[in-house]
Order: sequence, then C-alpha cells, then structure tokens
Amino acid sequence: MSAAMPEADALIVFTPSGKRGRFPVGTPVLQAARALGVDIDSVCGGRGLCGRCQVLVAEGEFAKHGVSSSAASLTPVSEPELRFGRRAKLAEGRRLSCSTKILADVVIDVPESSQVHRQVVRKAAEAREIDLNPLVRLYYVEVREPDMHEPSGDLRRLNEALEREWQIRGLDCDLQVLQTLQPILRQGEWKITVAVHDGRQIVAAWPGLKEVVYGLAVDIGSTTIAAHLCEILSGDVVASAGLMNPQIRFGEDLMSRVSYSMMNPGGAAQMTVAVREALNELAQEVAREAGVAVEDLLEITMVGNPIMHHLLLNIDPVELGGAPFALATDTSISLPARELGLKLHPNARAYVLPCIAGHVGADAAGVMLAERPDLTDEMTLIVDVGTNAEIVLGNRHRLVACSSPTGPAFEGAQISCGQRAAPGAIERVRIDPVTLEPRFRVIGCDLWSDEPGFAEATKKTGVTGICGSGIIEIIAEMYLSGVINQDGVVDGELAARSPRIVQNGRTHAYVLHQGAVDLKITQNDVRAIQLAKAALYAGIKLLMERLGVETVQRIRLAGAFGSHIDVKYATVLGMIPDCDLAKVDSAGNAAGTGARIALLDSTARATIERLVRDVEKVETAIEPRFQEHFVEAMAIPHKTAAYPHLSKVVTLPAPKASASQNETRGRRPRRADAAPTAV
Amino acid sequence: MSAAMPEADALIVFTPSGKRGRFPVGTPVLQAARALGVDIDSVCGGRGLCGRCQVLVAEGEFAKHGVSSSAASLTPVSEPELRFGRRAKLAEGRRLSCSTKILADVVIDVPESSQVHRQVVRKAAEAREIDLNPLVRLYYVEVREPDMHEPSGDLRRLNEALEREWQIRGLDCDLQVLQTLQPILRQGEWKITVAVHDGRQIVAAWPGLKEVVYGLAVDIGSTTIAAHLCEILSGDVVASAGLMNPQIRFGEDLMSRVSYSMMNPGGAAQMTVAVREALNELAQEVAREAGVAVEDLLEITMVGNPIMHHLLLNIDPVELGGAPFALATDTSISLPARELGLKLHPNARAYVLPCIAGHVGADAAGVMLAERPDLTDEMTLIVDVGTNAEIVLGNRHRLVACSSPTGPAFEGAQISCGQRAAPGAIERVRIDPVTLEPRFRVIGCDLWSDEPGFAEATKKTGVTGICGSGIIEIIAEMYLSGVINQDGVVDGELAARSPRIVQNGRTHAYVLHQGAVDLKITQNDVRAIQLAKAALYAGIKLLMERLGVETVQRIRLAGAFGSHIDVKYATVLGMIPDCDLAKVDSAGNAAGTGARIALLDSTARATIERLVRDVEKVETAIEPRFQEHFVEAMAIPHKTAAYPHLSKVVTLPAPKASASQNETRGRRPRRADAAPTAV
Repeated sequence: MSAAMPEADALIVFTPSGKRGRFPVGTPVLQAARALGVDIDSVCGGRGLCGRCQVLVAEGEFAKHGVSSSAASLTPVSEPELRFGRRAKLAEGRRLSCSTKILADVVIDVPESSQVHRQVVRKAAEAREIDLNPLVRLYYVEVREPDMHEPSGDLRRLNEALEREWQIRGLDCDLQVLQTLQPILRQGEWKITVAVHDGRQIVAAWPGLKEVVYGLAVDIGSTTIAAHLCEILSGDVVASAGLMNPQIRFGEDLMSRVSYSMMNPGGAAQMTVAVREALNELAQEVAREAGVAVEDLLEITMVGNPIMHHLLLNIDPVELGGAPFALATDTSISLPARELGLKLHPNARAYVLPCIAGHVGADAAGVMLAERPDLTDEMTLIVDVGTNAEIVLGNRHRLVACSSPTGPAFEGAQISCGQRAAPGAIERVRIDPVTLEPRFRVIGCDLWSDEPGFAEATKKTGVTGICGSGIIEIIAEMYLSGVINQDGVVDGELAARSPRIVQNGRTHAYVLHQGAVDLKITQNDVRAIQLAKAALYAGIKLLMERLGVETVQRIRLAGAFGSHIDVKYATVLGMIPDCDLAKVDSAGNAAGTGARIALLDSTARATIERLVRDVEKVETAIEPRFQEHFVEAMAIPHKTAAYPHLSKVVTLPAPKASASQNETRGRRPRRADAAPTAV
Repeated sequence: MSAAMPEADALIVFTPSGKRGRFPVGTPVLQAARALGVDIDSVCGGRGLCGRCQVLVAEGEFAKHGVSSSAASLTPVSEPELRFGRRAKLAEGRRLSCSTKILADVVIDVPESSQVHRQVVRKAAEAREIDLNPLVRLYYVEVREPDMHEPSGDLRRLNEALEREWQIRGLDCDLQVLQTLQPILRQGEWKITVAVHDGRQIVAAWPGLKEVVYGLAVDIGSTTIAAHLCEILSGDVVASAGLMNPQIRFGEDLMSRVSYSMMNPGGAAQMTVAVREALNELAQEVAREAGVAVEDLLEITMVGNPIMHHLLLNIDPVELGGAPFALATDTSISLPARELGLKLHPNARAYVLPCIAGHVGADAAGVMLAERPDLTDEMTLIVDVGTNAEIVLGNRHRLVACSSPTGPAFEGAQISCGQRAAPGAIERVRIDPVTLEPRFRVIGCDLWSDEPGFAEATKKTGVTGICGSGIIEIIAEMYLSGVINQDGVVDGELAARSPRIVQNGRTHAYVLHQGAVDLKITQNDVRAIQLAKAALYAGIKLLMERLGVETVQRIRLAGAFGSHIDVKYATVLGMIPDCDLAKVDSAGNAAGTGARIALLDSTARATIERLVRDVEKVETAIEPRFQEHFVEAMAIPHKTAAYPHLSKVVTLPAPKASASQNETRGRRPRRADAAPTAV
C-alpha cells in the first residue's frame, strides 16, 4: 500500500452481533473484528493457515480474483485463501477474514462455526446447549531466532512472540515443554503452536501449525465407566466408549468395596490402580476409534459417586463407610492428569467435579451442571437412581440435595428372578386385569410375548430374568390388576381364579413366565421394591418439606434407569410424587453430560463449585421425619399422598383393608453404605 | 473476666519497633502486637505450645505467680507458660506473649529471635545479612469435627480453621496431603499443623504441633556439588556436605559432557540421572548429619552453570555447545521437587535460579544475589573463576556480565605438574630473588619447606604437584624474581646462575621441587597461565569499556579459587585490574550463598529475576575488541594497563625487550565450550 495515497475509511458491520465501526481502507476484516470485540476464532494468528476465521459477505461485494472492481467491498481472494482452499476446501462465498481486507462499506456475517464462544448442540435428552469456553487454547506463533548480540532463552523469545501476536503475557511453562522446546522450535524452523491452559501455563508445544486437540469426559460408575472424547475447540464428540468398572472384582457394590479396603491393607490402593488402568484403557480405546493419538488428549474431566471419587484420587474411602460419612474434600480437584497415573498428553490436566456430601457425589454435581435447576422457576425434582438415589430439588431460589438408601432392588438385584439389563431380560410387562395373564417384551426382541414369532425370535437369548424397568412395570401392573393390594400383599384368593397365583411358602407369588427358567414374582420381591421405592420417596418428601412445597412441577430422571423406565409405572408405584406426566422425563446420562460441560466450558467449573457449595445438604440418616415418610411410603402408591395427575391417566384400584399391615411396620430402611459387616 | 466490671485501657509499647497503642486490660500481649502490626512469630496460633512468641518486659512489672500485685503490668506466669517451661526451658524474664495479658501500662521488648522477618547472620566472607522471609510457613490449627447436620469435607473444615485462626483463605491443597488428610486429622484428634507454600498451597500436614521444617540450598558445580541444610523458619544452617559431581565419569569438563551428550543417544538423560542421584545422596547425608528425616525437607534451591542447569532439568545441553549458545530458558524455574526426581518431602518445592546467558549461569545469578553489586555506589568487579570465568561489573546504576574462556589452567589442569587442591599439593610459593631458591607450603602441613621438620611432616602426603593458588604464586614469583620476563619467557641465561633453571627441549624450565616426583614449571605452563589470565582480563576489560570506566573500586573473588589465592599475586600476574588491595577480597562460595538466600528469603527470588533480566549481557565471542584486549593482556601484568596501587605494595621488574613476542602474537583464546571435537 502506498503511503502517499490518503486512505478513506469504510464502515464494517458484523452480524449477528451487530457490532460496527469505521476502519481505514485496507484493514483486514479479522483486525477490524478484533478491534470491535467481535468473537472470531483463530489459531494461526492471521496467517491464512488454520481456516478458523471464515466469514461471509452479507451485503457488499468482493472483487473477483485478479479483477479490481470499483464497487468491490473486499479485496479479491488472496493467495493464502487459495492455498487454504486447495488444502481444506473453502465453502462457496466463505472468506478467511485474516486474509481479506476492507475496501468499502460492507456487512460481514460471522457463522457460528467461526466463533470461539459458540454453543454445542446436545442430544434430545439434554436440557441445554453447552457454551464453548475451552480452558485450553492453541496459539501459533513465529519465534525470533536466537541472537548472540542479545542473548535470551528460547522460552523468553517464545513468550515475546505470544505477547506480540496474541497479547498474552507472563506465561509459565511446564517442565516437559521446556525439555522439548529447543528441538521443537528448530524442527518447526521457529514456527510453533503452543497449547495454553487457563491463559497461564504453556502445557504443550508442536512444531509448525497444530489445529486440533482433544479432551475426555468420564463418568465413573460403580458398575460401568463411560467416556466421551471431544474435540476441545469445536466441542464435537468424536468417539464414545464404555467399560465395566474392574473394581467389581473387589466387590459388587460400593459398600463391599469399602469393606474390602477395611479388611485388606493396601486394598484401597489396589482399587485405585484398577480404576486408573481402566481409564487408560478407555482413553486408548476412544483415541483409536477416533484415529487420534492419545498424546493429543490435553484435558480430562471426571465425575463419580463419593467412593468412586475417593478411590480415583487414591484416598482411602474408609471414612465414607460409617457416620459421620466425612468426605476428604467437597471441593473440586484440578491437577496434572499424570498425578492420577493417567497416560494422556504428558501435561494433560485433570478436573474432578466436587462431591456434594458423603453420599451425594460428583456424579450428582454433574447432573446439576447438566440440568441447571437453578436456572428455572419451576420446582424441579432430579432423581439419579443407583444403589443410592441421589436427589436434588429446587429452582432458582433455593436448592436442596440428599441421597436415599434405595439399595440395588431397582437394578434387579435382591429380586428372586432379577438380572442386569441384557438380552433375554424382561423389560416391559402388561397384565390383563380380567384373566391376570401377562404379556411382556425382552431386551433384544421387538415383539411382545403374545405376538406370533416371539418364541422363535427369543430362541437365542431365551427369557432369562427381569431387569430394573421390568420390575417396576410388573409390580405396578400387579397392583393395577389387583394381584397385590395397596400394602403390597399378593392376594392368595386369586389362586382360585388364575393359575398365575401360586402358593410360595407362607405367602403367594405371581408366575410371570415358565420356560427354561421359571420366573416368579414373590412376596419378598414385592417387599424389596416397596422398601426401595419407600426410601426414594421418603428422601424426596424430606426435600419437599425442607422447601415447604406440596408438589413438584417437573421431574427429571437421570441415568440409565431413568432412560428405560416408563414414568407412568414409576408414578403408579409411588416412587416419585404426583406430577403432570408430560413434565416427567429422562435426563439421559446427565452425570456424564456434566463432565462434558466441565470439559468444554471452563466457566461451568466455577458454576458447579458455587452450586455445590450453596445447595443445602440434607442427611437422611439423622432426619427423624425420614422414618415417618418411609413407613407411609410403603403403600402403593402412598398411604397419604394424593396423585391427582396420575388419576387422570390411570385408574387406580380402590384401597382395601389388609392383614399384612403389621408386617411392614417396624421395617427400617438400611443404608446401603452404612457400616459394613465383614465380607 | 467479669463482664460486669468496667475495663480500663492500658498503654503498651513494643521495642525495638516503637509501635504503641491502648488496649483493654486483659488483652493478650500477642493480640495487641498483631493489632499494631508488630512482627512476632507464632506457629501454634497462641496456644502456648510452640514458644516462638517470647517477649521480655522492658519496663513494667509482672505479678508473681499466684500473687496478685496492684502494681503488676502483666498477668502472672500462666499454666501454658509453666507447661512450656517444663518442656523447653523459658529463659529468665521471658514470657510467652500469647499467654500473657496486659494489666497496666508496659513496655515490651521483642527479641530478634521472636520475629518472623528477622535477619540471619552470615559468615565473614559474606557481604550482607539474609532477611528471613521463608516461602513456607507452618500453621497449627484445631479443626471442627465432621457433623452430619452440616456435612462438609475435612479439607473445607481445615480451611475454615486456617481462615478463622490465621486469616488465610482460599488455599489449594496438594493431592498427597489430601490423600493423607483424614488419618492425620484423626490421629491428631483434630489438631493439625500444615505447611503452606507461598501463602497459597497446603503442601504438608502433620498430626498435632510441628515446629521445624528444613530446606536445602545446593550449588551444583561441574566438579563438586555442595549443599547446606537450613532450618527454614530460623535460617540456621544445621548441616553442610559436599560430593564429587558423578557426571565426571561422562567427561571431566563441561565441553566433554556436551560432547558425550552429542555422541551418545540418551547421554544427556544419563547425566541427568547421575546428578539427581547425587542430590538425593547429598540430601540423605545432610539430613543424617543433622538428625533430621529427609521427609522434613520442604524446599530446595539450586544454582549451577548453564550446562549443569540444563542437565539438572533434563534439557539436552546441545544448544549450549555451539553458537549462538541459546539457553532453553533464562527465567527461574519453580516446580515440585519430585518432578526433578528428588526424594525429599513428597511435596517439597524446588526453585532453580535463572541463568543469565549461554555462558553465564545460575551460579553467577547466585553470586549476584549474594553480593548485590546493584546496592552499592562503588564500581564493583565480581569474578567467579572456573573453567569459564563468570564476570559481573557495575554498581547501583548499571550492571554488565560476561563469561570469559579461561580454560582450566587456574584449576591446575593443563599445567605439567598441576593437580587438584588436595593434601600434598603446593599452595604457596616464594622465590628468593638473589639465589632463585624456592620455598613452599603444601596442603595439609603448616610448615614452609625450608623450616625444620617439613620433610617429616609431609612424609605421609609427599609433595605431589601444584594446585591453582600455587600456580598463581609461582608464576608471579618467577616474574618478580626475574626468572620470566614481562612476556613470560623463561630466561635461559639464568641457568648459569642457578641450577633451578634448566633446559627443557627448545625452551627452559624452573625446577620447583625434586623428590619422589620432580616438579618443574615449563615454558608451556607459563604460557597456559598467560592465556588463561589474558582471557580473564580481556573479559573484564570488555565490561569496563562497556561501562566506560578506567578503574574499579572494589573486587570480589567468588568460589573456591577466590578463597585460596593471594590477591596480591593475582594482581601481579595481571589477572585482575589494578585496585586498592584492601578492596580486593574473597566472596566465599557466593553462588551457594545465593542459593541459600533464595531459600530463606522468598522476596530475593523476585530480586534475582529482576537483576538477571536487567543485567546487560556481553558475548565475548562476537566482540572484536575482546581479541585486542586478549593479546595486550598476555604480558605480565599487562602491556598497556597501569598498576599504580600494586606498585605501592610490590616492586615490579622493569620491562625489558623479549625475543618471544612473536610467539604469543597470533595465539587466540579458545572458548572451553566452543563446538567440540569428537571424543
């Protein structure tokens, strides 16, 4: 550009932000955007290499390449754009804002994909978009070569380049980066991309331009561990995988793992090694699936219940095994992933979400972060059912949380014919109220058991047992068809009417299926579900009392259990309070979603730390009212609570007197993770 | 105290600070001190346990124990003081300010030993006191027990206690502390002492009261590694030890170690392992000597030349082996010591002082920190002689630094009969100017060689060679006695006058000793010292020119070499410029002292980082004037420089013409660490 030619100003307007300003003709569009605070991404610092700064001309024209037009608003397609286009294909009408200069008034549209702080589309079950605010950013720079006339270390000249080109200063540097910095700078001929963590620390470096890095969001459950591999800068999930938690060999449920730790010196450390090995295996697996080097994983975020949380961190969970159930810490943990034995990038950072209380873990924190009940006016109930149910209730004004000792009955354990959700397991059940004949569906087959071809279709898997959602349905159907009364007693008199009702010791049972395996629902099975649902309901009721509310406006069921049960039957059983059924739905794997949000949106970390600090923690074990609610909730759906919404959908049997009332009285819920007995 | 009794105020004056104020009768002295900002130490938080808050009554009286006196200014000796006195002996008149309350006007003297920010007395050779500002502080607290009514993690309640009792908040916590926090709290019955690093991070925890922690200051030389173990809170050196640098097996001098790294893949890593193992051995040794567990070492600070610095950090020093001699970094390094493979407390922190330039290391930074030439008006020259001489010149207005390639001649290497300083080595020499007969002293014997009993006294060690200080003296004495002329030529004509002068090939030599080993100073030996001293002088002269000064006002000689040479002879040789000999002295192991200052005074870290950034770096290799100065400085003491101060002390021979002038011309100094040849 000739210095002699006086330059005019041109107006540039950016959409959708509406930001506008006048700039001298010849100003690059990216520079104008920066000056106006318009959010346009860039890794290469305006060198036309990374292609992240693409924009569209909304109004105005650009000069055709090589043909200058007096009406053109932008310079013609530049050499860097042509080069980039050959390499990566630039969509029709897209320009690289770094390599395009303003010639006259123009309106520039910034597509969402070019914004740093864009939103990530989530799945149907998920409540909100994820804001993209990655904690790790990539910066490409060209570093001044060393000069004996002005000696300075390579790191200092790198920092000078970062300050000059990106206005970031005072960065520290991980030792491992320092150890490899000199060969990397020379290999890249003084062009280098660095990853900066939290605007403060250089955690990785590559010769030349590096455009993509990844992070892993992990939900560590007692039974399974699930991981999502995300491209950190775009938020895209590029691979997902799950694995059984190898700690299962030390104990099926949480309490037996705590027992294992108590009875075996070094037992906790063994379980720590096991879960960390599983995480490494999972990282390898998702990286392989996405065709990514595991060394490109720069971040990992994790959630888990308190015992999983402590074992991950190599903290003996013994204190969580008995009152007062003290956590080692209820704050979040940020540290190098290598300190947890994780083999990602050598300087990858780990973030573990905070636990809420001794029985309400970082998984519940993840659920809160995914659901954000603090953003709504509606009184929202969130339930995550596992061995313990973790319950959060509230809205923007106030939040309370507790856990309730449901035990594993909802997962099919403690049920005579119960099993894990797997092919062959009954998941749906209907009982004809007149004949009392059942029909059902099993996992792995789309047909109902009374449809033609069912036997053939289930030949391979067989009908092997009943899983969690099936249990809920059959108990509810038994109630709706009168097989059990409100107190859960199997009506032996019906044996006269149907062969499905049989004597079973001193009580009666309902025969669901006869085959290779006979599947019966016994009186004990009904009791187990009653105990579990009464514990869940009592926890919910305690929180409702704490907030002084009689009803909830919205119910979100988190976790695998929540995804599979029919909310109508859960309500018939009285697991959850009455609510407009249209307002009851699954939240999907909300805990895992919470981990993913913490991975992609660094501002969410402060949010969840605040929510966890502020949520009121209720300890059911010391609430006398919990016992009362528990006893009242043994009845189906409930002894005292009304279910007006449910009554509109389902005809509930009229209550009748029962001889068994004494039987349930005096039974108390046992906390699944109360002080263990010897194994 | 009765709430009904109206309380009067009393005046309290603290000496030596002079701070004063009025407080209600009954106020503990420590509390009044805190309110007035008087510096009184405490670890136990005013519980009468640690005894660090001792004070004296300067004016006023205290009530005798059990006897209330109306004239008393302070409460009688309290139960905690009696208890502490039984345990640790409280000196006459000393009171624990935490357990002593004000009754009437009083003047309280705070002895220096009770101040947090006191000064540490240093050794004679050291220039200044060390201000005590340890980066690590100990805090004793009593933590609220967990309570199910208000669930919170143990770490949160610990932080609450730290905030309540010490007004420090928002502390992070190392994972290892978190992993052990629960058993420690229970073992100490909720009493705990934590070590807080830099006011931000809990790095260690012990059950109950912990009063003493340690730090290690290390000077990593190419040949030897020296360490001082200090009590961090008092500044006392409790043990010191040295060790040969095991890297010697990879190469005697720096350049051969760089060569080793270049020729052997993984060679640099081998040397890294070697030096780290030596540091661990040294830590074990000083800890054993002081009767301290190595796990009580919470801090380590280190200095070393650039190659030692890089090898310590596991950075391949290959770039330091050739122009442009680029450091990986010229900033300081702070990181967990375990990342350097150091086995101290698991969370001990390491601080490595910054290197100044490719040939001017963190050892020179340590020297600057110990000497602080930036605090004086006097034009100060600091010389640290090793294989390279590191030179700093300047005063409060401006500082310049360079290194000069002296080679190892000053250390006795490259000298035909040279050896390391060890028993049997000649360290002092005089030559009778008339007879040309020498007399000398050897290390390990207090007698001169011409004194009776010398032969007997040195029977065991023998006379085995000549060490660095001996070389300086004999060359200077040869010059003063006329054996060599100003150009360093051994005068062969003297062979006629003394059997000490002998033919040695085409030149002559001076016979210093005949015995089991014959010790001769050859013409080549003289040349080697001339080359070394010319390089040193040329470096100094370059810096003097840079600052535009003709003379220096003060010379400090750092390192072992500086401690042992006679400055008069160093001046006669022309190693250093003319200076009032009373103003030339040894700085002791100033590099090691610098490491110790960085250990004990955290504010010194910012100081040295600033000094290193601001000092002007001069690269002798690219200064054409260096060659000129070098050639001129080959003469003894110098071809052109005047030595008026020296002339007052020593009668220098009159210059005479020499036939050898051509011989020295054209010889160029070789940088000891220039690009290496194959080994």
